[in-house]
Amino acid sequence: MDLASYLHDKKIIVENMLRDICTSFTSTPGVLRNAMEYMLFSNGKKIRPILAIAACEAKGKSADDFLACFCTLEMIHTYSLIHDDLPCVDNDDTRRGRPTCHKAFGEAVAIMAGDGLLTEAFRVLSDPRFSERVAPKIARQFVFEIAHAAGAEGMVGGQVMDILYENKEGTKNILHYIHSHKTAAMLRASVRVGAIAGGAKARELKNFSRYGDAIGLAFQIMDDILDVEGDEETVGKKLKKDDNKQTYVKHYGILASKYKLEQLVDEAVKSVAFLGENGRVLEDIARFVGNRIS
Amino acid sequence: MDLASYLHDKKIIVENMLRDICTSFTSTPGVLRNAMEYMLFSNGKKIRPILAIAACEAKGKSADDFLACFCTLEMIHTYSLIHDDLPCVDNDDTRRGRPTCHKAFGEAVAIMAGDGLLTEAFRVLSDPRFSERVAPKIARQFVFEIAHAAGAEGMVGGQVMDILYENKEGTKNILHYIHSHKTAAMLRASVRVGAIAGGAKARELKNFSRYGDAIGLAFQIMDDILDVEGDEETVGKKLKKDDNKQTYVKHYGILASKYKLEQLVDEAVKSVAFLGENGRVLEDIARFVGNRIS
Repeated sequence: MDLASYLHDKKIIVENMLRDICTSFTSTPGVLRNAMEYMLFSNGKKIRPILAIAACEAKGKSADDFLACFCTLEMIHTYSLIHDDLPCVDNDDTRRGRPTCHKAFGEAVAIMAGDGLLTEAFRVLSDPRFSERVAPKIARQFVFEIAHAAGAEGMVGGQVMDILYENKEGTKNILHYIHSHKTAAMLRASVRVGAIAGGAKARELKNFSRYGDAIGLAFQIMDDILDVEGDEETVGKKLKKDDNKQTYVKHYGILASKYKLEQLVDEAVKSVAFLGENGRVLEDIARFVGNRIS
Repeated sequence: MDLASYLHDKKIIVENMLRDICTSFTSTPGVLRNAMEYMLFSNGKKIRPILAIAACEAKGKSADDFLACFCTLEMIHTYSLIHDDLPCVDNDDTRRGRPTCHKAFGEAVAIMAGDGLLTEAFRVLSDPRFSERVAPKIARQFVFEIAHAAGAEGMVGGQVMDILYENKEGTKNILHYIHSHKTAAMLRASVRVGAIAGGAKARELKNFSRYGDAIGLAFQIMDDILDVEGDEETVGKKLKKDDNKQTYVKHYGILASKYKLEQLVDEAVKSVAFLGENGRVLEDIARFVGNRIS
């Protein structure tokens, strides 16, 4: 199967499970549930759960029992987008071709929708209804991997540095901190969670982590390149707005950024070579990250 | 030991553990860590972890092994205060006698400090460094209880309804939804988590839940009464500002509110009568909730 079909099929599976998860919000106020679903089903790539599925399958294990757990990666990613778009943070009006959450529901509800998605992600990870066949020890490991990647030592820390270094000179070290925490940490966790579900041993997990780090950084560099060279309609958000941010293009120039991107894709591909034919999808995803146009 | 000494001693134990938890934020950006600690150590009562300790001890079990887990209740409570105080939510300038988090650190950092505390709470609940002696099955139960109480079906849901019904007529049903979700859900979870740690069986857990519901609602009614009759300096925040909110005093009047408060304290006391002498601290806490002045 080619990657496009794989991504398409898995995206549908992920969206169906996310809908199942949302039906469990039975006593959630309607407007809150609407705001949460508005962003959750706004045509994102669902790349984080798909990475987890691919990593799990690369170890020869079906992802079926872990699907709800993997979907929490998308819930947390979505919350981070909602909070990042807020007026006092990045102040973005459009996302994925639509008004951002606070534009559609107001700031207060948008903040709460983010808080709701983040918290419910951990509820799903620990809810027997959704993880009946996940051993408690594995569930605890999932919570740890995801919370560690998403929290103050991970994504939130990266986001704060991103804000603090707006309109500032910055350094390559700062840039690396921002990118590796803001974006790469959660992509890395996605791969690791999938690999853990698949039963990866410690040494294998190291390779999965290296793969996750490489595509995570590649993903963010591509974002920086798209901000300069992308097509606004295809990307689905306002571009050429990162001039005041720490970006790869700003610190290294466009050519060196593209070279670094290629290197990272190569590194990712090599990191999963040990999986042989089973690692093919992960290899293809790495190449896709290096060639995406949205 | 009298209750004042008990609360004082346990508060110190909780604060020390919270400090231990904060020392694990080794690569968190300084300003983010400062904002998180600013609110975490701002002289709150730490009543949620103390309730968990008291419930655990009421079952005759030491709380030592669970202390870090219980402290996550305070981390989540603190995040909720930070987000509630934001300009687009309740727009409060002071909290516990000091400038609110966004007044001290700016809005963006305040939002991220809340996000950080919420996420790190789940990290601590699943981090072997902090819950080495907590069985994975119990850890998973803690995550579920807390996430369920804090999320869209609990605290966040209550907060959204609180916002939506500002400056509106409202009904007693709406009022009950807001109070039982915004405040009572987390107090109930605090008691339940402690009871689960203490090894409470299903039938006992029901009584602990009833106790938690009763003091949770009592706590919020007292808040409504204090807003009208309290001393601003003692309470530590601006009062007489809930005129536009759904409050017990608004829907029932001050006398009926005080009567309801008394009834709830009685109900709480009765719910833990089955514990005999071991339940004394929980009884005293219930009475304290009904008499607090801050």
